[in-house]
Amino acid sequence: MTSDALTSYVATFVDGLVSSGIVDVVISPGSRSTPLALTMAECDELNVYTNIDERSAAFFALGIAKAKQHPVVLLCTSGTAAANYFPAIVEAHYSRVPLVVVTADRPHELREVGAPQAIDQVDLYGKYAKWFVDVSIPESSVEALRYIKQVAKRAVHVAERGGQGVTHVNFPLREPLLPNLAEVHNFFEERREERKKVSERIGSQADVAYVEQLLERAEKPLFICGQQISEEGSREIVALADMLNIPILADPLSNIRTNNLVQDVVMDSYDTFLKNERVAEELAPDLIVRFGGMPVSKTTLKFMTNYAPENFIMVDHTLDWRDPTGTITDVIVSHEEFLCRSLREQCENITFSKNWLSKWMNVQNITSDLLQQAMANTEELDEGKVVVELQEALPEQSLLFVGNSMPIRDVDTFLRKSSKSLDVLANRGANGIDGVVSAALGASTAYHHSVLLIGDVSFYHDLNGLLAAHLNELNLTVVLVNNDGGGIFSFLPQAKEEKHFELLFGTPLGIDFSNAVKAYHGSFHKASNWADFRYYLEESFRTKGVTVIEIETVRTKNVETHRSMWKDIEDALNEEKEK
Amino acid sequence: MTSDALTSYVATFVDGLVSSGIVDVVISPGSRSTPLALTMAECDELNVYTNIDERSAAFFALGIAKAKQHPVVLLCTSGTAAANYFPAIVEAHYSRVPLVVVTADRPHELREVGAPQAIDQVDLYGKYAKWFVDVSIPESSVEALRYIKQVAKRAVHVAERGGQGVTHVNFPLREPLLPNLAEVHNFFEERREERKKVSERIGSQADVAYVEQLLERAEKPLFICGQQISEEGSREIVALADMLNIPILADPLSNIRTNNLVQDVVMDSYDTFLKNERVAEELAPDLIVRFGGMPVSKTTLKFMTNYAPENFIMVDHTLDWRDPTGTITDVIVSHEEFLCRSLREQCENITFSKNWLSKWMNVQNITSDLLQQAMANTEELDEGKVVVELQEALPEQSLLFVGNSMPIRDVDTFLRKSSKSLDVLANRGANGIDGVVSAALGASTAYHHSVLLIGDVSFYHDLNGLLAAHLNELNLTVVLVNNDGGGIFSFLPQAKEEKHFELLFGTPLGIDFSNAVKAYHGSFHKASNWADFRYYLEESFRTKGVTVIEIETVRTKNVETHRSMWKDIEDALNEEKEK
Repeated sequence: MTSDALTSYVATFVDGLVSSGIVDVVISPGSRSTPLALTMAECDELNVYTNIDERSAAFFALGIAKAKQHPVVLLCTSGTAAANYFPAIVEAHYSRVPLVVVTADRPHELREVGAPQAIDQVDLYGKYAKWFVDVSIPESSVEALRYIKQVAKRAVHVAERGGQGVTHVNFPLREPLLPNLAEVHNFFEERREERKKVSERIGSQADVAYVEQLLERAEKPLFICGQQISEEGSREIVALADMLNIPILADPLSNIRTNNLVQDVVMDSYDTFLKNERVAEELAPDLIVRFGGMPVSKTTLKFMTNYAPENFIMVDHTLDWRDPTGTITDVIVSHEEFLCRSLREQCENITFSKNWLSKWMNVQNITSDLLQQAMANTEELDEGKVVVELQEALPEQSLLFVGNSMPIRDVDTFLRKSSKSLDVLANRGANGIDGVVSAALGASTAYHHSVLLIGDVSFYHDLNGLLAAHLNELNLTVVLVNNDGGGIFSFLPQAKEEKHFELLFGTPLGIDFSNAVKAYHGSFHKASNWADFRYYLEESFRTKGVTVIEIETVRTKNVETHRSMWKDIEDALNEEKEK
Repeated sequence: MTSDALTSYVATFVDGLVSSGIVDVVISPGSRSTPLALTMAECDELNVYTNIDERSAAFFALGIAKAKQHPVVLLCTSGTAAANYFPAIVEAHYSRVPLVVVTADRPHELREVGAPQAIDQVDLYGKYAKWFVDVSIPESSVEALRYIKQVAKRAVHVAERGGQGVTHVNFPLREPLLPNLAEVHNFFEERREERKKVSERIGSQADVAYVEQLLERAEKPLFICGQQISEEGSREIVALADMLNIPILADPLSNIRTNNLVQDVVMDSYDTFLKNERVAEELAPDLIVRFGGMPVSKTTLKFMTNYAPENFIMVDHTLDWRDPTGTITDVIVSHEEFLCRSLREQCENITFSKNWLSKWMNVQNITSDLLQQAMANTEELDEGKVVVELQEALPEQSLLFVGNSMPIRDVDTFLRKSSKSLDVLANRGANGIDGVVSAALGASTAYHHSVLLIGDVSFYHDLNGLLAAHLNELNLTVVLVNNDGGGIFSFLPQAKEEKHFELLFGTPLGIDFSNAVKAYHGSFHKASNWADFRYYLEESFRTKGVTVIEIETVRTKNVETHRSMWKDIEDALNEEKEK
């Protein structure tokens, strides 16, 4: 009888998840979660991934959800297991990735009474869960089953609508914890409804008219595109910009640089050329429309702050307010595709002088050529050139997952607009160096070829994540830029404070990564020149499992190279001005 | 001027921590936390430990605080770094370990506006922080310095008083982030007050009189001692029990078994002999007084539930209610030492018949001998015998840190009361398998010789933690019981459900730990027999750094061995009864 209640209640919950379109589930082993884990494993429509370290598990789920743009379910047992999900939940919240977190819990009589592995899981993730529910103990009444199915559907619904994010279902379970697997299938509804595609079109005609007016009044409009714009959104933004001759600053994570959208309006070298004050001043816009998250480029942030135009519009379909410059003048609550398509249909009599766009194209072309030359002339191993090599070598429609700190900045500087289609992803919600290996492995489930570009500190932080590749038979090429410590700190003012620097910031790890990778059944190669690098890269695409290709660089040298290249380009742009 | 405000404010805060007796600080590298990190490093009175992975860092700090019974400060930068502290914070909350968590934060104008590495850190740990404060931006006025010093002192005060736990200071900092190190010392007060030792004596004479009455009425009293009783408390409990002939069930984590308190009243084999229903029935008490946390033994939990006496007292100086049996009748809010010393002084006319104690001693002696024999006869590598070998080999006053899941249960079964002084520690707040390597390394800072006994899943979960040994030059012997997966699940009902078992529960990791340990500069040995094991153990005590000694066991075999040993003892106890 108890087992019947358990079986029917849990199976109905899992059925609710599947009816809502859930396909991928990431499970970490545990005892209290047994009924849920067994029932999910028994459901033919679910892909079950095992990931033992819950911190890695949650980033892994985030990676899948990010790549597939679809909610993923996480399941763990009670106790600190659930607390280990926290970093990825914070990242998912800020980067708007839909996750449904299911935590098994002790029943009410074992809470806060010193029972083993029982912690207070009610509202465990605080503001970082969009919706939290502590469900009832399993029962088999019609009402109970109706209730638990609605909970499952609602958890998915809330995670994937509006600003996508995290929902948390806390699931108290009493012993015995074994459902009747033979019966489980009776509770799975056989007929699956055709799922309607989530495609909201938030936006109003009043907003479209308002932006149209602003465009009519403008002479020097600029579009800025950050991360996480939908494919359709990207296409519509570029089409509108192209029709109106509006330059676009395209962040690498907007995927406008690398998704067959090569157009004159698309700028990719702005992080370099806007460092030049004279150039920046000349390119000051009188209207900015920003789409997506904040761009990676710190130069662009300064540019937006120093040259904030009278009208500075942010387009966002949620009620977030993502503007660290403090200079935006209005938020348009709309999906990009709705706004841009509507404008394209209605703005037929607006055009901007080609002169404005040409100014941008001119510096863009000079800078892009100089960057390319600088890289072509670089013989030794270099953190910037890795990006150029990767863009060259990666097959069409591959994934490039980028680590935070230096790699994402190098990708911002060196990734060029190209007709080769690549998806570029990174954890830019909270920009942590944690969980990156796991997120990349999760994302790799949606691609034929996947490369992770990562620094040594970040790679170390989530070394545990590598185990998932072995357990779930995943393929990933990791390009490990090893400068033995925190490279980014060498770019910051504390680099001048030599006392305590290595202890607190440089933190040389001294890890022999070849052994660490071997422990997890990965292949490891150290590339000592570019020919090696290209060879190992090609080989990795033909190899199963994880291949790590290490490139050793020197922190101080890297700073020098970057700075001297930027200086050369600054000089060239100044000369150009004086002509 | 800004730099002056920063320097004086931050230095005064650090001075406040030092004045409150803080000695150990665990820092994870980051940019926003630069002023705090540099100032702490500049303070001669602080030991600074570097730990890069914040999850490990927090468990490391927990280990130090647990071993030294003194608050430890954690420092990290803004963003998900702070979220990685969460698992250890939950553990510290439940196991009452004093931690002062300092998180650097972006200033108010960069919060919730999409700035990089900025997350909402206000109340980040929810109910798991005893006190949270979001301090003001650095200023140099007298009032501001007075304020920030009080914040520092209060954070330490609240963490170490009452039920010890976690306080959280969130510290917003604006750029530039470089304090003037030459000036820092001006803000450190030279004269340090003699710190008064925290030694509260919570407890009232009314409570003492009440327990005295209960003792007067009782005929078959029993003491049960769980984890984390102070040294003084342990001594007083044993002295009282010895005076009155009251048996004590001494959990390994009470440190009564292993701290020179060998007395007839101390029982160490109850987890085995109380499995026998006839024995349990005969030993049913009419009064239980419980001290400390819940004991590890599940048998004892059942015994307390099934034979709950009319008077069942829990002694706790906090307002927690740690009773998963649901059978306690009263809580005495008192420190153990206060209650027991007062009783000893006042109970002179109470004594209990030796008959009651003899019954306990009889089964204790038979069981203890049988356990010893069983282990003496065990030739092959066995998870239980490791405990016996360790207790034999460890030098006096060493640390034995015990992993959760199987190791702590084996220690409960096989660790005997002994005149050899050992400190036995474990993470029994939330009983997680996470963070155990780091906690042991943290604790090792307080001992000459330290051994961690841990299973493979738990070792894997915190492999990252090993780096801290290299970075901070710590010594630890890790005894790794490797049964390639989750051994405990083989003892649970799902072991019978073969379908999905290995995927969801057994989870063979297939990790070659020798390579993983090598990556972190540790020594690795695989012991294939007991002679090997003893040799490597001895050698490890003479070796710097981390030595891992692996013992390979078989999950299914381990269950069989344990069960057949318990069966033999059950039979022997039954025979004894029939005599």
